[in-house]
Amino acid sequence: MTQPGPLNGILVVDMTRILAGPYCTLMMAELGARVIKIETPGVGDDARHYGPFLGKKSAYFMSINRGKESIALDLKKDSDRAVLDKLLAKADVVVENFRGGTMERLGYGWGALNKKYPRLIYVAASGFGHSGPEAERPAYDMVVQGLGGIMSITGEPGRPPVRIGMSIGDIGAGLYAAIGVNAALYHRAKTGLAIKVDIGMFDCQLALLENAILRYFVTGQAPGPLGARHPSIVPFEAYRAADGYLIVAAGNDALFVKACAALGLSGMAKDSRFLTNDLRNQNVDAIKTEFERVLAAKPVAHWQGVMDDAGVPAGPINDVGQAIESAQARARNMVVTADDPVAGPVKLVGNPIKLSSFADPPTRAPAPGLDADRAKILKELGLD
Amino acid sequence: MTQPGPLNGILVVDMTRILAGPYCTLMMAELGARVIKIETPGVGDDARHYGPFLGKKSAYFMSINRGKESIALDLKKDSDRAVLDKLLAKADVVVENFRGGTMERLGYGWGALNKKYPRLIYVAASGFGHSGPEAERPAYDMVVQGLGGIMSITGEPGRPPVRIGMSIGDIGAGLYAAIGVNAALYHRAKTGLAIKVDIGMFDCQLALLENAILRYFVTGQAPGPLGARHPSIVPFEAYRAADGYLIVAAGNDALFVKACAALGLSGMAKDSRFLTNDLRNQNVDAIKTEFERVLAAKPVAHWQGVMDDAGVPAGPINDVGQAIESAQARARNMVVTADDPVAGPVKLVGNPIKLSSFADPPTRAPAPGLDADRAKILKELGLD
Repeated sequence: MTQPGPLNGILVVDMTRILAGPYCTLMMAELGARVIKIETPGVGDDARHYGPFLGKKSAYFMSINRGKESIALDLKKDSDRAVLDKLLAKADVVVENFRGGTMERLGYGWGALNKKYPRLIYVAASGFGHSGPEAERPAYDMVVQGLGGIMSITGEPGRPPVRIGMSIGDIGAGLYAAIGVNAALYHRAKTGLAIKVDIGMFDCQLALLENAILRYFVTGQAPGPLGARHPSIVPFEAYRAADGYLIVAAGNDALFVKACAALGLSGMAKDSRFLTNDLRNQNVDAIKTEFERVLAAKPVAHWQGVMDDAGVPAGPINDVGQAIESAQARARNMVVTADDPVAGPVKLVGNPIKLSSFADPPTRAPAPGLDADRAKILKELGLD
Repeated sequence: MTQPGPLNGILVVDMTRILAGPYCTLMMAELGARVIKIETPGVGDDARHYGPFLGKKSAYFMSINRGKESIALDLKKDSDRAVLDKLLAKADVVVENFRGGTMERLGYGWGALNKKYPRLIYVAASGFGHSGPEAERPAYDMVVQGLGGIMSITGEPGRPPVRIGMSIGDIGAGLYAAIGVNAALYHRAKTGLAIKVDIGMFDCQLALLENAILRYFVTGQAPGPLGARHPSIVPFEAYRAADGYLIVAAGNDALFVKACAALGLSGMAKDSRFLTNDLRNQNVDAIKTEFERVLAAKPVAHWQGVMDDAGVPAGPINDVGQAIESAQARARNMVVTADDPVAGPVKLVGNPIKLSSFADPPTRAPAPGLDADRAKILKELGLD
């Protein structure tokens, strides 16, 4: 039932919901772990109620929770707490993404768990991490995108702010959590000791911004948004062609000369305003004007061929359909199918971590119905 | 010299440059691995020549390569290949981010290395991964951002495309690579067997887009950009106040009622156009108009207090200076210092993976000068 992978044999008790925590346990399931979701009776993971829907089932939930199992437990009931305790005693890892302080109030904080189950690795993905003045403040993807600074450097100068089109606040935290838990599993394999991995969504936003924060440290000025332009390399931008935009990434002098020649603008390559990357940064608008004057005459596909022939890195701006339907995405098994008992066959995005020695099958186990694995799990625990 | 962490004792031979691969090995160094960069003699990692600069040293390079060591090797010279061979024989992991096929041409492909060094884990972070029609095509962050679809869902409808303000193409790949290598280390600790981790930047973009691709699969329509609005939750957007924007994330009916009351708009909560999230999606512009009419009267800080008091998740759009200078960032040790022998003390972004049992000191070892560790490394290898 579990995916073939390096985490085969690992049991994860998954007390997460919505996206940041579930994305971490999705990565673990994709790497071969057995993941058991602990859900609220009746309601379940909030993401079960988020669109888009297929039939009556949330495709969003199915995508993030494929290959996991589900048991509904009411942690106010002693009998259900006893089930959780038995599960934790067997588990290798517990993952939760409550706001800071919640697990302690439930009686399942790291201190208590580590005393009872010294081999149990504990992973928390909260809004702000388990320390500092904001430790108990709840967070939501978009609030964290705003607080962490990424929105301030994305978009057009002088225009209203834009959100990153995917949930970078949640998924960023899920990725760093997945790095942490795998490192903790390695450490435990070597030493026998479990550790706590404490991830704050806000911290992760800062870590993702590396270059922009450095600019602030070095210059004292916070950078702003630059549209579709790179902050320090020219030409490295989306330029308008007849039917859309072409990204040209000519990151050094030699590539600039090639790009000019390809566009029939060889004179530009010798122009004293454009001789170095530093000069090109000073005259970035003049380059854009010249490039777009030529590019306007033909469609993106034409110019893509011209740039490929010239050896200049370039590409179109695909919509997500074009991206996922591409020959490369198919060849890399980036579209997989789960056969859902309610919704039927569902197409999902594959796992980008490709590992030798382990198959990457074209199908995945579906996401569980709420409490669907109760009987099997209770039987395994000797509680049936 | 290495950072305290779960990867203490692990030796990484780092054949990467610029960002995607170096970000993976940065995470490994932060988790305690010893990382030795193999650089081109004379030039070194291209990132050494990228701004911003502090003195004559690239702050960008320092940030991504802190705590690593450097040796310059010319892989066309037998004597230098012998050094690399001795290093690989001692190493646990080799990481590279050349374009597909390059390592094979150098004689260091996975097949050859796995035969000679069966315990050596091999991590490749290339543009498109090591299979499929694009396997040998080079890639650059911005080209991958365009190809992978993220740019098509970020920005304002009807406006020119925008780049994600950080290098999500490179850093995304670095994060998935870091998950893969840690899982591979765990697997080797259990089985003694090394595996190859094959990461494509393009695949990673698809994996990050989960929700948008699902929408495409379910509806057959590729979603477009939505400015600062969430695709399916209302209100979940940046609204204009007197002096800037406030993000209000009132993700359910109860929070909507609270948000309306907080803004003195209690009538809205009973308006038949806004009773459910589905209805609010149909009337999203009317909500924006009403909210912004009220918000225009006072500054963001005022409304932040009002929303906090009402228990409605909300936040400002910080610039990166405000984000990194925040009390929470300081409390979480998200600003660390490296004492560079050339540039002096340099502020860098800290590690968001906080682990119990391991110190997270306020300082880091600086980034190496090109070839700075040659003598020490040769001595260790018995080649001095």
